[in-house]
Amino acid sequence: MTGLFITLEGGEGAGKTSAIPLLTARLEKEGYQVLATREPGGIEIAEAIRAVILDPANTSMDGRTEALLYAAARRQHLVEKVWPALKKGMIVLCDRFVDSSLAYQGYTRGLGMEEVLEINRFAVETTMPDLTLFFDISPKAGLARISENKGREQNRLDLEALSFHESVYEGYQILREQYKDRYVTLDASKPLADVAAHAVQAIMAFLQGKEK
Amino acid sequence: MTGLFITLEGGEGAGKTSAIPLLTARLEKEGYQVLATREPGGIEIAEAIRAVILDPANTSMDGRTEALLYAAARRQHLVEKVWPALKKGMIVLCDRFVDSSLAYQGYTRGLGMEEVLEINRFAVETTMPDLTLFFDISPKAGLARISENKGREQNRLDLEALSFHESVYEGYQILREQYKDRYVTLDASKPLADVAAHAVQAIMAFLQGKEK
Repeated sequence: MTGLFITLEGGEGAGKTSAIPLLTARLEKEGYQVLATREPGGIEIAEAIRAVILDPANTSMDGRTEALLYAAARRQHLVEKVWPALKKGMIVLCDRFVDSSLAYQGYTRGLGMEEVLEINRFAVETTMPDLTLFFDISPKAGLARISENKGREQNRLDLEALSFHESVYEGYQILREQYKDRYVTLDASKPLADVAAHAVQAIMAFLQGKEK
Repeated sequence: MTGLFITLEGGEGAGKTSAIPLLTARLEKEGYQVLATREPGGIEIAEAIRAVILDPANTSMDGRTEALLYAAARRQHLVEKVWPALKKGMIVLCDRFVDSSLAYQGYTRGLGMEEVLEINRFAVETTMPDLTLFFDISPKAGLARISENKGREQNRLDLEALSFHESVYEGYQILREQYKDRYVTLDASKPLADVAAHAVQAIMAFLQGKEK
Protein backbone atom coordinates (compact mmCIF):
# COMPACT_ATOMS: atom_id res chain seq x y z
CA MET A 1 0.00 0.00 0.00
CA THR A 2 1.78 3.10 -1.17
CA GLY A 3 -1.10 5.59 -1.00
CA LEU A 4 -2.31 7.77 1.86
CA PHE A 5 -5.41 6.94 3.84
CA ILE A 6 -7.09 10.00 5.36
CA THR A 7 -10.33 9.88 7.33
CA LEU A 8 -12.64 12.75 8.23
CA GLU A 9 -14.37 12.51 11.59
CA GLY A 10 -16.64 14.63 13.77
CA GLY A 11 -20.22 15.20 14.83
CA GLU A 12 -23.23 16.37 12.85
CA GLY A 13 -23.03 19.78 11.21
CA ALA A 14 -19.25 19.89 11.42
CA GLY A 15 -18.89 20.37 7.65
CA LYS A 16 -16.92 17.20 6.78
CA THR A 17 -19.04 16.33 3.79
CA SER A 18 -18.99 19.90 2.45
CA ALA A 19 -15.22 20.09 2.82
CA ILE A 20 -14.46 16.98 0.79
CA PRO A 21 -14.97 18.47 -2.71
CA LEU A 22 -12.75 21.43 -1.76
CA LEU A 23 -10.00 19.15 -0.44
CA THR A 24 -10.23 16.90 -3.48
CA ALA A 25 -9.93 19.84 -5.89
CA ARG A 26 -6.97 21.32 -4.01
CA LEU A 27 -5.10 18.01 -3.84
CA GLU A 28 -5.75 17.25 -7.50
CA LYS A 29 -4.45 20.71 -8.36
CA GLU A 30 -1.25 19.73 -6.55
CA GLY A 31 -1.02 16.72 -8.86
CA TYR A 32 -2.29 14.00 -6.57
CA GLN A 33 -4.76 11.33 -7.57
CA VAL A 34 -7.62 11.41 -5.08
CA LEU A 35 -10.45 9.04 -4.23
CA ALA A 36 -13.18 10.66 -2.12
CA THR A 37 -15.53 8.11 -0.62
CA ARG A 38 -17.75 7.14 2.26
CA GLU A 39 -19.25 3.78 3.17
CA PRO A 40 -21.08 2.03 1.51
CA GLY A 41 -19.73 4.00 -1.45
CA GLY A 42 -21.61 2.33 -4.29
CA ILE A 43 -20.12 -1.08 -3.50
CA GLU A 44 -23.00 -3.43 -4.17
CA ILE A 45 -22.60 -5.74 -1.18
CA ALA A 46 -21.94 -2.83 1.18
CA GLU A 47 -25.02 -1.03 -0.17
CA ALA A 48 -27.12 -4.16 0.39
CA ILE A 49 -25.87 -4.37 3.99
CA ARG A 50 -26.58 -0.67 4.56
CA ALA A 51 -30.08 -1.18 3.20
CA VAL A 52 -30.70 -3.78 5.93
CA ILE A 53 -29.46 -1.32 8.59
CA LEU A 54 -31.59 1.53 7.29
CA ASP A 55 -34.78 -0.43 6.49
CA PRO A 56 -37.44 1.33 8.59
CA ALA A 57 -39.15 -2.06 9.08
CA ASN A 58 -36.15 -3.21 11.11
CA THR A 59 -37.00 -1.31 14.30
CA SER A 60 -36.14 -4.31 16.48
CA MET A 61 -32.50 -4.31 15.40
CA ASP A 62 -30.17 -4.94 18.31
CA GLY A 63 -27.24 -2.53 18.80
CA ARG A 64 -24.65 -5.30 18.44
CA THR A 65 -26.30 -6.61 15.26
CA GLU A 66 -26.04 -3.11 13.86
CA ALA A 67 -22.38 -2.74 14.86
CA LEU A 68 -21.54 -6.06 13.15
CA LEU A 69 -23.37 -4.93 10.01
CA TYR A 70 -21.46 -1.62 9.93
CA ALA A 71 -18.22 -3.57 10.29
CA ALA A 72 -19.26 -5.92 7.46
CA ALA A 73 -20.09 -3.04 5.10
CA ARG A 74 -16.80 -1.37 6.09
CA ARG A 75 -14.85 -4.51 5.24
CA GLN A 76 -16.36 -4.87 1.79
CA HIS A 77 -15.93 -1.15 0.99
CA LEU A 78 -12.29 -1.45 2.05
CA VAL A 79 -11.62 -4.55 -0.05
CA GLU A 80 -13.34 -3.34 -3.20
CA LYS A 81 -12.71 0.40 -3.14
CA VAL A 82 -10.15 1.68 -0.61
CA TRP A 83 -7.43 -0.95 -0.95
CA PRO A 84 -7.33 -0.86 -4.77
CA ALA A 85 -6.96 2.96 -4.63
CA LEU A 86 -4.22 2.79 -1.98
CA LYS A 87 -2.42 0.14 -4.03
CA LYS A 88 -2.41 2.58 -6.95
CA GLY A 89 -0.77 5.16 -4.67
CA MET A 90 -3.82 7.42 -4.46
CA ILE A 91 -4.87 9.67 -1.60
CA VAL A 92 -8.09 8.28 -0.18
CA LEU A 93 -10.36 10.75 1.65
CA CYS A 94 -12.90 8.71 3.60
CA ASP A 95 -15.86 10.47 5.22
CA ARG A 96 -16.13 8.54 8.53
CA PHE A 97 -14.44 5.23 9.35
CA VAL A 98 -13.78 3.05 12.42
CA ASP A 99 -13.66 6.05 14.78
CA SER A 100 -17.30 6.89 14.00
CA SER A 101 -18.33 3.41 15.14
CA LEU A 102 -16.26 3.83 18.29
CA ALA A 103 -17.76 7.24 19.13
CA TYR A 104 -21.38 6.53 18.17
CA GLN A 105 -21.84 2.83 18.95
CA GLY A 106 -18.99 2.07 21.32
CA TYR A 107 -19.23 5.16 23.50
CA THR A 108 -22.64 6.78 23.06
CA ARG A 109 -24.74 3.65 22.53
CA GLY A 110 -22.79 1.98 25.30
CA LEU A 111 -21.51 -1.14 23.50
CA GLY A 112 -18.00 -0.37 24.70
CA MET A 113 -15.24 1.24 22.65
CA GLU A 114 -12.82 -1.64 23.14
CA GLU A 115 -15.39 -4.24 22.07
CA VAL A 116 -16.46 -2.32 18.99
CA LEU A 117 -12.79 -1.84 18.13
CA GLU A 118 -12.30 -5.62 18.23
CA ILE A 119 -14.89 -6.41 15.58
CA ASN A 120 -13.56 -3.52 13.51
CA ARG A 121 -10.02 -4.86 13.82
CA PHE A 122 -11.33 -8.09 12.33
CA ALA A 123 -12.91 -6.05 9.52
CA VAL A 124 -10.00 -3.74 8.66
CA GLU A 125 -7.04 -5.93 9.73
CA THR A 126 -4.07 -3.55 9.87
CA THR A 127 -5.61 -0.74 7.79
CA MET A 128 -6.08 2.21 10.10
CA PRO A 129 -5.93 5.83 8.86
CA ASP A 130 -2.56 7.47 8.30
CA LEU A 131 -4.19 10.77 9.18
CA THR A 132 -7.54 11.68 10.73
CA LEU A 133 -8.96 15.17 10.28
CA PHE A 134 -11.19 15.93 13.26
CA PHE A 135 -13.77 18.60 12.48
CA ASP A 136 -14.12 20.23 15.88
CA ILE A 137 -17.33 22.10 16.61
CA SER A 138 -19.43 22.21 19.75
CA PRO A 139 -22.44 19.91 19.46
CA LYS A 140 -24.73 22.90 20.04
CA ALA A 141 -23.15 24.90 17.20
CA GLY A 142 -23.17 21.85 14.92
CA LEU A 143 -26.85 21.20 15.51
CA ALA A 144 -27.64 24.90 15.07
CA ARG A 145 -25.91 24.78 11.71
CA ILE A 146 -28.03 21.79 10.66
CA SER A 147 -31.18 23.56 11.80
CA GLU A 148 -30.28 26.65 9.79
CA ASN A 149 -29.69 24.51 6.74
CA LYS A 150 -33.11 23.00 7.10
CA GLY A 151 -34.57 26.44 7.54
CA ARG A 152 -36.34 25.61 10.77
CA GLU A 153 -36.31 26.64 14.40
CA GLN A 154 -34.55 24.66 17.11
CA ASN A 155 -37.31 22.38 18.36
CA ARG A 156 -37.86 19.96 21.21
CA LEU A 157 -36.37 17.06 19.28
CA ASP A 158 -33.20 19.00 18.57
CA LEU A 159 -32.90 19.77 22.25
CA GLU A 160 -33.39 16.14 23.19
CA ALA A 161 -30.82 15.17 20.62
CA LEU A 162 -28.27 17.54 22.13
CA SER A 163 -27.29 15.15 24.95
CA PHE A 164 -26.76 12.42 22.35
CA HIS A 165 -24.49 14.66 20.30
CA GLU A 166 -22.65 15.84 23.39
CA SER A 167 -21.94 12.24 24.23
CA VAL A 168 -20.63 11.60 20.70
CA TYR A 169 -18.37 14.63 21.15
CA GLU A 170 -17.05 13.18 24.41
CA GLY A 171 -16.36 9.91 22.59
CA TYR A 172 -14.28 11.78 20.04
CA GLN A 173 -12.27 13.49 22.81
CA ILE A 174 -11.24 10.04 24.02
CA LEU A 175 -10.24 9.04 20.48
CA ARG A 176 -8.25 12.26 19.97
CA GLU A 177 -6.28 11.45 23.09
CA GLN A 178 -5.89 7.77 22.26
CA TYR A 179 -4.82 8.29 18.67
CA LYS A 180 -3.04 11.62 18.97
CA ASP A 181 -0.35 10.51 16.51
CA ARG A 182 -2.81 10.48 13.65
CA TYR A 183 -5.36 13.11 14.80
CA VAL A 184 -5.29 16.66 13.48
CA THR A 185 -7.95 18.96 14.92
CA LEU A 186 -9.55 21.56 12.68
CA ASP A 187 -11.58 24.46 14.09
CA ALA A 188 -14.80 23.64 12.26
CA SER A 189 -16.63 26.70 13.63
CA LYS A 190 -14.69 28.80 11.09
CA PRO A 191 -15.85 29.41 7.51
CA LEU A 192 -15.62 26.36 5.25
CA ALA A 193 -12.82 27.83 3.09
CA ASP A 194 -10.63 28.36 6.16
CA VAL A 195 -11.30 24.86 7.46
CA ALA A 196 -10.45 23.38 4.07
CA ALA A 197 -7.26 25.43 3.86
CA HIS A 198 -6.15 24.19 7.28
CA ALA A 199 -6.97 20.62 6.23
CA VAL A 200 -4.92 20.89 3.05
CA GLN A 201 -2.04 22.37 5.03
CA ALA A 202 -2.18 19.42 7.44
CA ILE A 203 -2.22 16.91 4.59
CA MET A 204 0.70 18.65 2.87
CA ALA A 205 2.66 18.69 6.09
CA PHE A 206 2.01 15.00 6.51
CA LEU A 207 3.07 14.30 2.93
CA GLN A 208 6.28 16.18 3.55
CA GLY A 209 6.96 13.88 6.45
CA LYS A 210 6.17 16.44 9.10
CA GLU A 211 3.60 15.83 11.79
CA LYS A 212 1.34 18.56 13.07
CA MET B 1 -31.75 -17.88 31.85
CA THR B 2 -33.19 -21.04 33.32
CA GLY B 3 -33.51 -23.12 30.14
CA LEU B 4 -31.04 -25.41 28.43
CA PHE B 5 -29.17 -24.43 25.30
CA ILE B 6 -28.19 -27.40 23.13
CA THR B 7 -26.44 -27.08 19.78
CA LEU B 8 -26.08 -29.71 17.06
CA GLU B 9 -22.84 -29.65 15.12
CA GLY B 10 -21.12 -31.68 12.43
CA GLY B 11 -20.38 -31.91 8.74
CA GLU B 12 -22.69 -32.43 5.80
CA GLY B 13 -24.75 -35.60 5.70
CA ALA B 14 -24.30 -36.25 9.41
CA GLY B 15 -28.06 -36.30 10.01
CA LYS B 16 -28.38 -33.34 12.42
CA THR B 17 -31.37 -31.84 10.68
CA SER B 18 -33.15 -35.19 10.41
CA ALA B 19 -32.56 -35.94 14.08
CA ILE B 20 -34.11 -32.72 15.39
CA PRO B 21 -37.79 -33.70 14.98
CA LEU B 22 -37.11 -37.02 16.74
CA LEU B 23 -35.31 -35.29 19.62
CA THR B 24 -38.06 -32.69 19.91
CA ALA B 25 -40.79 -35.34 20.05
CA ARG B 26 -38.94 -37.40 22.66
CA LEU B 27 -38.21 -34.43 24.89
CA GLU B 28 -41.78 -33.15 24.64
CA LYS B 29 -43.00 -36.63 25.58
CA GLU B 30 -40.87 -36.29 28.71
CA GLY B 31 -42.76 -33.10 29.51
CA TYR B 32 -40.19 -30.53 28.38
CA GLN B 33 -40.99 -27.44 26.35
CA VAL B 34 -38.72 -27.45 23.30
CA LEU B 35 -37.75 -24.84 20.72
CA ALA B 36 -36.09 -26.33 17.64
CA THR B 37 -34.42 -23.68 15.52
CA ARG B 38 -31.59 -22.78 13.20
CA GLU B 39 -30.35 -19.38 12.06
CA PRO B 40 -31.88 -17.23 10.61
CA GLY B 41 -34.99 -18.99 11.93
CA GLY B 42 -37.69 -16.74 10.51
CA ILE B 43 -36.37 -13.67 12.35
CA GLU B 44 -36.93 -10.90 9.86
CA ILE B 45 -33.62 -9.05 10.28
CA ALA B 46 -31.63 -12.29 10.37
CA GLU B 47 -33.42 -13.48 7.21
CA ALA B 48 -32.58 -10.19 5.47
CA ILE B 49 -28.90 -10.60 6.43
CA ARG B 50 -28.86 -14.20 5.23
CA ALA B 51 -30.39 -13.07 1.94
CA VAL B 52 -27.39 -10.76 1.42
CA ILE B 53 -25.00 -13.67 2.13
CA LEU B 54 -26.80 -16.05 -0.21
CA ASP B 55 -27.54 -13.62 -3.06
CA PRO B 56 -25.88 -15.25 -6.09
CA ALA B 57 -25.08 -11.76 -7.40
CA ASN B 58 -22.70 -11.26 -4.45
CA THR B 59 -19.87 -13.40 -5.78
CA SER B 60 -17.27 -10.84 -4.75
CA MET B 61 -18.08 -11.17 -1.06
CA ASP B 62 -14.95 -11.22 1.07
CA GLY B 63 -14.61 -14.03 3.62
CA ARG B 64 -14.41 -11.60 6.54
CA THR B 65 -17.49 -9.71 5.35
CA GLU B 66 -19.33 -13.02 5.28
CA ALA B 67 -18.15 -13.98 8.78
CA LEU B 68 -19.34 -10.62 10.16
CA LEU B 69 -22.72 -11.10 8.47
CA TYR B 70 -23.11 -14.60 9.96
CA ALA B 71 -22.27 -13.15 13.37
CA ALA B 72 -24.83 -10.35 12.88
CA ALA B 73 -27.60 -12.80 11.90
CA ARG B 74 -26.63 -15.00 14.86
CA ARG B 75 -26.91 -12.05 17.24
CA GLN B 76 -30.39 -11.09 16.09
CA HIS B 77 -31.64 -14.71 16.12
CA LEU B 78 -30.31 -15.04 19.66
CA VAL B 79 -31.93 -11.82 20.88
CA GLU B 80 -35.30 -12.39 19.28
CA LYS B 81 -35.71 -16.16 19.45
CA VAL B 82 -33.21 -18.07 21.61
CA TRP B 83 -33.01 -15.81 24.67
CA PRO B 84 -36.80 -15.46 25.06
CA ALA B 85 -37.15 -19.28 24.96
CA LEU B 86 -34.32 -19.80 27.46
CA LYS B 87 -35.88 -17.20 29.76
CA LYS B 88 -39.10 -19.24 29.71
CA GLY B 89 -37.06 -22.26 30.81
CA MET B 90 -37.35 -24.10 27.50
CA ILE B 91 -34.88 -26.53 25.96
CA VAL B 92 -33.50 -24.90 22.82
CA LEU B 93 -32.17 -27.23 20.10
CA CYS B 94 -30.15 -25.13 17.69
CA ASP B 95 -28.98 -26.67 14.40
CA ARG B 96 -25.46 -25.14 14.10
CA PHE B 97 -24.10 -22.19 16.12
CA VAL B 98 -20.73 -20.51 16.79
CA ASP B 99 -18.79 -23.78 16.34
CA SER B 100 -19.92 -24.02 12.70
CA SER B 101 -18.40 -20.60 12.02
CA LEU B 102 -15.19 -21.68 13.76
CA ALA B 103 -14.92 -24.94 11.78
CA TYR B 104 -16.01 -23.64 8.37
CA GLN B 105 -14.78 -20.04 8.32
CA GLY B 106 -12.16 -19.93 11.03
CA TYR B 107 -10.43 -23.23 10.23
CA THR B 108 -11.30 -24.31 6.70
CA ARG B 109 -11.54 -20.90 5.04
CA GLY B 110 -8.45 -19.84 6.95
CA LEU B 111 -9.74 -16.73 8.74
CA GLY B 112 -8.43 -18.09 12.03
CA MET B 113 -10.48 -19.80 14.72
CA GLU B 114 -9.47 -17.35 17.45
CA GLU B 115 -10.34 -14.33 15.30
CA VAL B 116 -13.71 -15.70 14.24
CA LEU B 117 -14.38 -16.54 17.89
CA GLU B 118 -13.76 -12.91 18.84
CA ILE B 119 -16.45 -11.46 16.59
CA ASN B 120 -18.78 -14.23 17.72
CA ARG B 121 -18.08 -13.41 21.35
CA PHE B 122 -19.19 -9.87 20.58
CA ALA B 123 -22.36 -11.34 19.00
CA VAL B 124 -23.32 -13.87 21.66
CA GLU B 125 -21.77 -12.25 24.77
CA THR B 126 -21.77 -15.00 27.41
CA THR B 127 -24.27 -17.30 25.70
CA MET B 128 -22.43 -20.45 24.70
CA PRO B 129 -24.10 -23.87 24.51
CA ASP B 130 -24.65 -25.87 27.69
CA LEU B 131 -24.31 -29.00 25.61
CA THR B 132 -23.13 -29.64 22.04
CA LEU B 133 -24.13 -32.82 20.23
CA PHE B 134 -21.41 -33.64 17.71
CA PHE B 135 -22.70 -35.83 14.88
CA ASP B 136 -19.58 -37.79 14.08
CA ILE B 137 -19.32 -39.30 10.62
CA SER B 138 -16.37 -39.53 8.26
CA PRO B 139 -16.55 -36.81 5.58
CA LYS B 140 -16.54 -39.54 2.91
CA ALA B 141 -19.49 -41.37 4.46
CA GLY B 142 -21.35 -38.08 5.01
CA LEU B 143 -20.92 -37.03 1.39
CA ALA B 144 -21.90 -40.51 0.20
CA ARG B 145 -25.11 -40.20 2.20
CA ILE B 146 -25.87 -36.84 0.57
CA SER B 147 -25.20 -38.31 -2.86
CA GLU B 148 -27.56 -41.20 -2.18
CA ASN B 149 -30.23 -38.80 -1.01
CA LYS B 150 -29.94 -36.86 -4.20
CA GLY B 151 -30.11 -40.09 -6.18
CA ARG B 152 -26.94 -39.39 -8.13
CA GLU B 153 -23.47 -40.80 -8.58
CA GLN B 154 -20.43 -39.42 -6.85
CA ASN B 155 -19.07 -36.93 -9.36
CA ARG B 156 -15.97 -34.86 -9.82
CA LEU B 157 -17.35 -31.95 -7.82
CA ASP B 158 -18.11 -34.20 -4.88
CA LEU B 159 -14.56 -35.48 -5.03
CA GLU B 160 -13.16 -31.99 -5.11
CA ALA B 161 -15.37 -31.12 -2.19
CA LEU B 162 -14.01 -33.99 -0.13
CA SER B 163 -10.85 -32.16 0.91
CA PHE B 164 -13.02 -29.22 1.99
CA HIS B 165 -15.19 -31.47 4.14
CA GLU B 166 -12.16 -33.26 5.54
CA SER B 167 -10.81 -29.91 6.62
CA VAL B 168 -14.12 -29.03 8.30
CA TYR B 169 -13.92 -32.37 10.12
CA GLU B 170 -10.43 -31.50 11.33
CA GLY B 171 -11.75 -28.17 12.58
CA TYR B 172 -14.38 -29.98 14.62
CA GLN B 173 -11.73 -32.25 16.14
CA ILE B 174 -10.01 -29.13 17.48
CA LEU B 175 -13.31 -27.86 18.90
CA ARG B 176 -14.12 -31.23 20.51
CA GLU B 177 -10.80 -31.08 22.29
CA GLN B 178 -11.10 -27.41 23.20
CA TYR B 179 -14.65 -27.62 24.51
CA LYS B 180 -14.69 -31.17 25.82
CA ASP B 181 -16.79 -30.16 28.82
CA ARG B 182 -19.78 -29.45 26.63
CA TYR B 183 -19.15 -31.81 23.68
CA VAL B 184 -20.91 -35.16 23.43
CA THR B 185 -19.95 -37.23 20.40
CA LEU B 186 -22.63 -39.33 18.69
CA ASP B 187 -21.73 -42.06 16.22
CA ALA B 188 -23.65 -40.62 13.27
CA SER B 189 -22.81 -43.55 11.01
CA LYS B 190 -25.47 -45.58 12.87
CA PRO B 191 -29.17 -45.59 11.94
CA LEU B 192 -30.98 -42.34 12.73
CA ALA B 193 -33.12 -43.89 15.48
CA ASP B 194 -30.02 -45.08 17.34
CA VAL B 195 -28.32 -41.70 17.00
CA ALA B 196 -31.42 -39.93 18.30
CA ALA B 197 -31.70 -42.37 21.21
CA HIS B 198 -28.08 -41.70 22.19
CA ALA B 199 -28.70 -37.94 21.89
CA VAL B 200 -31.76 -38.10 24.16
CA GLN B 201 -29.80 -40.18 26.66
CA ALA B 202 -27.04 -37.54 26.67
CA ILE B 203 -29.53 -34.73 27.19
CA MET B 204 -31.27 -36.60 30.00
CA ALA B 205 -27.96 -37.33 31.65
CA PHE B 206 -27.10 -33.65 31.45
CA LEU B 207 -30.48 -32.68 32.87
CA GLN B 208 -29.91 -35.05 35.76
CA GLY B 209 -26.71 -33.23 36.51
CA LYS B 210 -24.42 -35.91 35.15
CA GLU B 211 -21.85 -35.25 32.50
CA LYS B 212 -21.03 -37.78 29.88
